[in-house]
Amino acid sequence: MKKGKFIVVDGIDGSGKSTQIKMLKKRLGARATFTHDPGGTPTGEAIRTILLGKARLSPVALLLLFLASRAALVEEVIAPALARGKNVISDRFDSSTFAYQVHASGHTEFRPLMKAFAQNVLKDTRPDAYVLLDSDPVLARRRLFTDRKKKLNAYDKKPLSFHRAVRAGFKKIKSAGSKVFIVNGDRAPEEVFKDVSSIVSRILN
Amino acid sequence: MKKGKFIVVDGIDGSGKSTQIKMLKKRLGARATFTHDPGGTPTGEAIRTILLGKARLSPVALLLLFLASRAALVEEVIAPALARGKNVISDRFDSSTFAYQVHASGHTEFRPLMKAFAQNVLKDTRPDAYVLLDSDPVLARRRLFTDRKKKLNAYDKKPLSFHRAVRAGFKKIKSAGSKVFIVNGDRAPEEVFKDVSSIVSRILN
Repeated sequence: MKKGKFIVVDGIDGSGKSTQIKMLKKRLGARATFTHDPGGTPTGEAIRTILLGKARLSPVALLLLFLASRAALVEEVIAPALARGKNVISDRFDSSTFAYQVHASGHTEFRPLMKAFAQNVLKDTRPDAYVLLDSDPVLARRRLFTDRKKKLNAYDKKPLSFHRAVRAGFKKIKSAGSKVFIVNGDRAPEEVFKDVSSIVSRILN
Repeated sequence: MKKGKFIVVDGIDGSGKSTQIKMLKKRLGARATFTHDPGGTPTGEAIRTILLGKARLSPVALLLLFLASRAALVEEVIAPALARGKNVISDRFDSSTFAYQVHASGHTEFRPLMKAFAQNVLKDTRPDAYVLLDSDPVLARRRLFTDRKKKLNAYDKKPLSFHRAVRAGFKKIKSAGSKVFIVNGDRAPEEVFKDVSSIVSRILN
């Protein structure tokens, strides 16, 4: 029984996602629970360590680890919060899996697994809205590499062509029952936030 | 292009599986590659640590972690070995997932996910045969608890009723294209091995 609203903020690495989420946290305070995918639970954080580690992972093992982490997040955090009437905002969700692991990595054969996951695990815990920060990968990478606090992971090191494909993947996201908003992320953070907070306010109210 | 034969040895905890596999290793030597599921790859071993750890895992996260580990094992170890003409013997495989996570845990809703996994990940890497050691859970637990070298995991500590249900699950295993052999494990190891080695020889020859 979903009562709260569930919003996903997503975009390519360096799109300004973390900055926008930080600003949303400040704006919304106790009006929303914030989480991130992968991670967000003890199991998810253990999986995240594998995902961001150095071991070469086969594409499908990678996909299944993302799904395992998401399953724990949905069951332990998102679904219970929504049921209590809490709004949830997640930094990444299945939109990232679609953009990175399916679209940009060229694994359309993963769709049946993702579909089975949506039907059997997500069930009615689907996002009400996706706020997708659209950013030119050249600018995004510049942001990423000048932010010295951020430790680069395997994805950050992938070639520009990969990030272009991820960007294109995000633009293809359609999800039954979810609203998808594409926001131009290549502006000053305050400008971007005007759009992001207005979208979020409309969904929450 | 599968050329070698793929045999799974499985059974409830304490059924004498490890002893039989040890005897098979000695008998077969270089005629087969031995592996175990979960685990068997660097990714799989990292996942195994999560699986056998203390964190409470939601049933579906558990299932997906088993599948992720299996995906890595199939792609990195089993399929390449079979393609080189090597025989593979695995300590546990999808038969355990069915017996423990689906049948004994009462999660029949996991079947669509397992089916999607079989079709999209296993593909033609299905076992040629399952050798299932059938054992009375009371006797199996006696073996388990008197073997002081074995560290007990969360499954070993489950009630007898759970292990009875796992045993019943193993007896229900049917897999298109695979032969299933049920071997009475409640006899002296040498007696059991007569059956096990005769089955394995027939499959490999």
